[in-house]
Amino acid sequence: MNDYLSFNEGQIEQLETRFRAHMVNSLSGFKSANLVGTQDADGQTNLAIVSSVVHLGANPPLIGMVMRPNTVARHTLENLRQTECFTINHVSAEFYKKAHQTSARFDKSQSEFEQVGLDTEYLADINAPFVAQSPLKFAVRLLEIKPIEANGTEFVIGQIFHIELDGNALQCDGYIDIEALDTVAVSGLDSYHVSNRITRLSYAKPNKAPHKISVSGE
Amino acid sequence: MNDYLSFNEGQIEQLETRFRAHMVNSLSGFKSANLVGTQDADGQTNLAIVSSVVHLGANPPLIGMVMRPNTVARHTLENLRQTECFTINHVSAEFYKKAHQTSARFDKSQSEFEQVGLDTEYLADINAPFVAQSPLKFAVRLLEIKPIEANGTEFVIGQIFHIELDGNALQCDGYIDIEALDTVAVSGLDSYHVSNRITRLSYAKPNKAPHKISVSGE
Repeated sequence: MNDYLSFNEGQIEQLETRFRAHMVNSLSGFKSANLVGTQDADGQTNLAIVSSVVHLGANPPLIGMVMRPNTVARHTLENLRQTECFTINHVSAEFYKKAHQTSARFDKSQSEFEQVGLDTEYLADINAPFVAQSPLKFAVRLLEIKPIEANGTEFVIGQIFHIELDGNALQCDGYIDIEALDTVAVSGLDSYHVSNRITRLSYAKPNKAPHKISVSGE
Repeated sequence: MNDYLSFNEGQIEQLETRFRAHMVNSLSGFKSANLVGTQDADGQTNLAIVSSVVHLGANPPLIGMVMRPNTVARHTLENLRQTECFTINHVSAEFYKKAHQTSARFDKSQSEFEQVGLDTEYLADINAPFVAQSPLKFAVRLLEIKPIEANGTEFVIGQIFHIELDGNALQCDGYIDIEALDTVAVSGLDSYHVSNRITRLSYAKPNKAPHKISVSGE
């Protein structure tokens, strides 16, 4: 059953490039699937699927994401440097194919919203487009971009300053039932998944087994 | 059906602390569930569940994770600063409760391996313990710790130098079928999920709809 495989450093280095990309992208585990909405100073919009959005902290509410300057995400980076603002929009099962298609190399003059068939939505004073179809989305103010010298990527850090969500998913303790929103998860470079909750578990304490808590947090 | 709720900056600030923690932790989407294994110079082991492991790049193979120095993860941080090495081990549905329990505040002298009932596994020349029960795990060499000044967290960057996995999950194009390994995903602070694949999608190209590809990558 368990046919364990090992790869040492030299073997990892010698893997064929595309094979290694698929393999290493699978190692971190399930990834978030988000669409990042931006626009430039002229209002030209851009939309990019990103699987590297990561929670940084709740107080203040901070989020991070890894961007590769040499990929299709470069327009996103250019825009958010200009406007210091972007939106993050959960990808749900209903439109995951359209979300995936935003990763094609469109020209700067082509908006991915139009190209893939998703709708912009604007809220007063927020200088970036939301995805109308997304059931959970928020606006982020750029705080800092940290260069990651080891591979030339950038770690974008921002503060969440506006949240929009389908209220049916918000539970009484603040937990948002993103499974009920059909938010998808990504594995590797290209695999999309919906989820089945095993359970919520109580806050862990030494010498006490965690117990199941209800989804509603009651 | 769609009862949309909005929270502006002032409203987010005024949320009760624990409510905001649950809510903001839900915003990034599904998170990876990994156990980080370390030991100090004396061989005292530590194990901590982390939901912030993020892919940074495949060539070289890099991984990042966010650590909060004031939480139970502090022993992990102390250890990996000393040894410059750590392991990352996928959490599968079979032992997710034990994994969750590692987040209880144990003393430095107590190994979470023993406390929660998971087994250490050592590989030659790797100065950190793996989780024997994990079907996909890898060793990481510390490259850099970037302080995130905005909230006092640390972004740990490392290079993957050894990979161990159940070979049945490795597909012919390098994709690892982590769903077949029962790797779990996390949402919010405490909700654990297994996954159902919708599909893998082909590499996106302009003016061409993405098509389904087989799990095996053929």
